[in-house]
Amino acid sequence: MTVADEIQGLLRPGLRGLSPYGAPQLDVAVRLNTNENSYSVPDEVVRAVATALTSEIADLNRYPDRDAVKLRADLAAYLGHGIDAEWVYAANGSNEVQQQLLQAFGGPDRVVLGFGPAYSMHPLLAVGTATGWVDAGRGDDFGLTAAHAVDAVREHRPALTMLCSPNNPTGTALDLDVVRAVLAATEGLVVVDEAYAEFARPGTPSALSLLAEHPRLVVTRTMSKAFAFAGARVGYLVAHPAVIDAVQLVRLPYHLSALTQAAARAALAHTPVLLATVEAIKQQRDRIVATLRERGLRVADSDANFVLFETGGDQQAVWRALLERGVLVRDVGLKGWLRVTAGTPAETDAFLTAMEQQ
Amino acid sequence: MTVADEIQGLLRPGLRGLSPYGAPQLDVAVRLNTNENSYSVPDEVVRAVATALTSEIADLNRYPDRDAVKLRADLAAYLGHGIDAEWVYAANGSNEVQQQLLQAFGGPDRVVLGFGPAYSMHPLLAVGTATGWVDAGRGDDFGLTAAHAVDAVREHRPALTMLCSPNNPTGTALDLDVVRAVLAATEGLVVVDEAYAEFARPGTPSALSLLAEHPRLVVTRTMSKAFAFAGARVGYLVAHPAVIDAVQLVRLPYHLSALTQAAARAALAHTPVLLATVEAIKQQRDRIVATLRERGLRVADSDANFVLFETGGDQQAVWRALLERGVLVRDVGLKGWLRVTAGTPAETDAFLTAMEQQ
Repeated sequence: MTVADEIQGLLRPGLRGLSPYGAPQLDVAVRLNTNENSYSVPDEVVRAVATALTSEIADLNRYPDRDAVKLRADLAAYLGHGIDAEWVYAANGSNEVQQQLLQAFGGPDRVVLGFGPAYSMHPLLAVGTATGWVDAGRGDDFGLTAAHAVDAVREHRPALTMLCSPNNPTGTALDLDVVRAVLAATEGLVVVDEAYAEFARPGTPSALSLLAEHPRLVVTRTMSKAFAFAGARVGYLVAHPAVIDAVQLVRLPYHLSALTQAAARAALAHTPVLLATVEAIKQQRDRIVATLRERGLRVADSDANFVLFETGGDQQAVWRALLERGVLVRDVGLKGWLRVTAGTPAETDAFLTAMEQQ
Repeated sequence: MTVADEIQGLLRPGLRGLSPYGAPQLDVAVRLNTNENSYSVPDEVVRAVATALTSEIADLNRYPDRDAVKLRADLAAYLGHGIDAEWVYAANGSNEVQQQLLQAFGGPDRVVLGFGPAYSMHPLLAVGTATGWVDAGRGDDFGLTAAHAVDAVREHRPALTMLCSPNNPTGTALDLDVVRAVLAATEGLVVVDEAYAEFARPGTPSALSLLAEHPRLVVTRTMSKAFAFAGARVGYLVAHPAVIDAVQLVRLPYHLSALTQAAARAALAHTPVLLATVEAIKQQRDRIVATLRERGLRVADSDANFVLFETGGDQQAVWRALLERGVLVRDVGLKGWLRVTAGTPAETDAFLTAMEQQ
């Protein structure tokens, strides 16, 4: 027996034979595969973050503020909706936030319910926390109706229900009536993953507006997308303080570094500058949607910084053809469909041209 | 029913009624309670880390290197023992590393075995990952013999066995014969937590020297202590690459920020300067041990940057008396004993004076 076989044999049964999460990290000119913000951090924000980080370094011998009190206050101020700092909790990306929710409220003999295609990390977080995963699916048009969601909740009685709005990989925001219907149907927590909320089309309400009335609702957010801060790893949740008390039981002490806290606060202090890219990205998103539709392809409505489109053929072949033209998009495993991030005008040009040529 | 009661009722059964981990974060002049390195990061390292961080900020719109390849190579180079980068894996503190080991190899219907008093996070990590926790204890002198450890392994058949060397809170390093005996007795993983290894007394071997012969051995380390980098949150493990492949199944994608990776690499490039504090701290440690013994108190042998000592009375009363004199130490819940971090000469003066006065 090889060492690899021996170690594989020691793995938890639920993990054997699995492969790690991994969008390909390829060195390609036009990277439109992980829904990053294509705009670099602007100079004035670079300077502010550098100053904030530099002031932390001498004291790195000390542990950071375990409760990230100042960062939580800044996030609350950004969010509005009358949200207090006590309703905000931050961690290393919204993945960590969601993992901690599953550690606290999921676990053995419990089920977390999702509606795929949705964020591909949700089932992996379930595996990693030994929580059962049920995917109740969506309609053929990738829509999610209140009736379908409520039926699934009644059937599976989940400890947590994961909703994504805007949904990844389809891009479409969820009607709040669906969130309300799920909250009414379940006795468990309802997590609305709003990673892409800042890109929503005008008039799209956030589930934040439901929090005051629904103590079992949790909204998760990230600074990775609209704030162009993916490399800094800052995600957060908004929920009743009792939910945050519960998460504290499983969060690792000092989980959020002094550098992360300082960088995030400096970025939040420059919110208007950072979010200035959002409008530009939405224009490119709408341009991609319109252009592909003009070419006769089916395209999902998008409230995000990406677009899910039908390739009109084998999506793996189209993915490879685009890559050969220097454009990396994402094959999310949906037969006939691909997902492309909306970035700069030049990136949109490159993508649309490559699509025409393939 | 209050909202807090409702949310508490939704918690996983294993978590109900628990309190979060929390060393008191008090604003005291002399903080000797969390085994931080009392020396600030030196100016030349501050400058190097600032430069490294600043060069990352513009590109924070992109996700970091998911595999932290350069950092792992630097850590391997620091460790020596012929260790390659493929044998090293880094995360946000050794707590996260150990949590991921439990997620991969522990979980429901499995047991992790420890020998308390040891690192107080180990049972909490077991709870957080729904892994059974067995504490097989130690001798009255806080020693751990091979015979006792092997008996416990045979009785409980753990998926993982946690050993600490030097042990926290007692401070004493473990004879490698105990590690070898446990490896021979168990079919599971053996994790040796060497958070304080750099402070060991001369001639104390590291379990790193056993890795080549023992594929089920994992050694965890941190930059929080000897490297004075607690605020940056960098921990790592060293193990056969098959163990690291397993951990990749549960690690969150992009778990280690670009800032963390850059800061850690800049610090490692200044290893001699940073580790220059280690000898000074060891002198204070040895001074605390010798002085308290001269005063007739029992003191555990220490290979760490802290000292466990018998107070000669109610340890809670002594803890309060020291706090009144501006010295914060740690009550680790051992009747009659307290733990004090070895810091600067002035901090040792303050502690020893306060001990004399109480």
